Amino acid sequence: MSELRRHPFLDQWVITATHRQDRTFFPPADYNPLAPTNPGGFPTEIPFPEYDITVFENKFPSLRADAPDPAVTGSELLPVRPSHGACEVVCYSQILDSTFATLPYRQVRKLTRVWKDRFIDLSARSDVEYVFMFENKGKEIGVTLFHPHGQIYAYPFIPPIAKTELEQERKHFERSGRPLMQDVLAESTENFVFENERFAAFIPFFARYPFEVYVTPKCQIPSFAQMDNADLDDLAEALLTVTRKYDGLFGFSMPYVMAIHQQPSIEGYDFAWFHVEFYPPYRTANKLKYLAGSEAGMGAYINDTLPEVTSAQLRAIEIPPIR
Amino acid sequence: MSELRRHPFLDQWVITATHRQDRTFFPPADYNPLAPTNPGGFPTEIPFPEYDITVFENKFPSLRADAPDPAVTGSELLPVRPSHGACEVVCYSQILDSTFATLPYRQVRKLTRVWKDRFIDLSARSDVEYVFMFENKGKEIGVTLFHPHGQIYAYPFIPPIAKTELEQERKHFERSGRPLMQDVLAESTENFVFENERFAAFIPFFARYPFEVYVTPKCQIPSFAQMDNADLDDLAEALLTVTRKYDGLFGFSMPYVMAIHQQPSIEGYDFAWFHVEFYPPYRTANKLKYLAGSEAGMGAYINDTLPEVTSAQLRAIEIPPIR
Repeated sequence: MSELRRHPFLDQWVITATHRQDRTFFPPADYNPLAPTNPGGFPTEIPFPEYDITVFENKFPSLRADAPDPAVTGSELLPVRPSHGACEVVCYSQILDSTFATLPYRQVRKLTRVWKDRFIDLSARSDVEYVFMFENKGKEIGVTLFHPHGQIYAYPFIPPIAKTELEQERKHFERSGRPLMQDVLAESTENFVFENERFAAFIPFFARYPFEVYVTPKCQIPSFAQMDNADLDDLAEALLTVTRKYDGLFGFSMPYVMAIHQQPSIEGYDFAWFHVEFYPPYRTANKLKYLAGSEAGMGAYINDTLPEVTSAQLRAIEIPPIR
Repeated sequence: MSELRRHPFLDQWVITATHRQDRTFFPPADYNPLAPTNPGGFPTEIPFPEYDITVFENKFPSLRADAPDPAVTGSELLPVRPSHGACEVVCYSQILDSTFATLPYRQVRKLTRVWKDRFIDLSARSDVEYVFMFENKGKEIGVTLFHPHGQIYAYPFIPPIAKTELEQERKHFERSGRPLMQDVLAESTENFVFENERFAAFIPFFARYPFEVYVTPKCQIPSFAQMDNADLDDLAEALLTVTRKYDGLFGFSMPYVMAIHQQPSIEGYDFAWFHVEFYPPYRTANKLKYLAGSEAGMGAYINDTLPEVTSAQLRAIEIPPIR
């Protein structure tokens, strides 16, 4: 059972998905549902003896093309609608003991092509307004399956954070004639952690999380759909660089939320600027940053670190050449 | 070092407070900094041999009256300002092994008077736009001091969640002539968990968290400042009822964020409707709800439970009479 309910105080849709309570929760390693299915072994969610990268619909989707009619009737004040859209799982590799950061460069290049393909496909659907690709990594983030994978939520609405960001980008463009990210980039060079020809990675001056990194093209690209192979390769290198530097920071495989921001799939957002945001939950090697009273209760973020300092720390982490 | 930096994509102020990295982190029980100071013992943050309820400035404040000039110069695009305001700690009791839920009713009645006093005092300050009282309870929320206490953040701005909520309340009032909470209450009676003469507690139809509870006056009251003693007593009973029912739900002392929403302390918000929101992080007795990709990355909440079901569960929890 799944439906969308309007939050009248926050002007946003809440997704109610009660069947998800029973979803797979820390399975033992030999019952990994994201492993290939061995001939004669138990059937996983992937009915093949091996795979490279695989994308399939989440077994416990919050959003789906054939969303059922809501179980309850809403009202004018508290409307309800079907939870149309899609939830997909993207397995980065068939190897359980790997992470995004330990994938070979050639695998991440392929993954960027998979993302582009899924973006174009899902964006074309009439029930989808925003395609959100992301990865939750690490038990600190609540991950219940350790197999390296990301997810795609194709929402039937523009979600609140994207909505605010797009509004601000629109306002800035109307005021100045320039994209907001272009101006932010121009003032962020001292906080660059990495750059190649087409992409840059930096900790923004206004970071809400310690070690929060933005990975962005240097020139405006709205989404995967407009990226050519050289863009995708530079993106792959930048993402691998950031995640490998993260792993070098505290000596353990760094958990994070990776959030890919793109153009909505409805008209009117040609000014959107593709970028990837990373939120690692650690503020030091053994202290987590929690979203508690000020953040969860009021949306006011407190960052215990200075972006000028954390960007220097991350820049100083040396990693072997990627290509 | 502490300052406010403008997030240009999210139109919000981020509080940078680097001295907080060194704050007290799970001290051993005999070094509890919120205990009274025993004669001859180590000096805690409270220099008295005993206390009832005590309020004092946070030793590691993110916001303060004498905020220093920012260490960095901002720009037109990325402005910086001093982190004026206040961060206070409210110790509910001198007894370490207690929680809000286990306080006697007479103590919570007193606490409501303390909150009212602090609200009036902090709201009168020219550097304060919003007084936010809250409690983070439990290590699952990131609490590093187990002594029962709440906090007060007096922000020099209206924080994002309050801002959105107030905008929605204003729009609804302009459209319908009625306060939004009044209409929500009228449609929420089936989800009531508790009510007394002046207050009601319910799980909203649009809850973002499992077991999210709103505690609200039945008639419009903007803030503590307008509450009389009968209001405060009914509020105390309602808050104790909710927290004691929480403790009865899974058989352990329930962690939560408790967020008190009130009228801003600048002009123009007479329509505000005081209420308290509780966000417990558990979705079942042994599963936590994490704010991951969809929530932290895009602000789109997924609730794995149905408010109609969770409100019935909470309503069914029996507790001894409070007064």
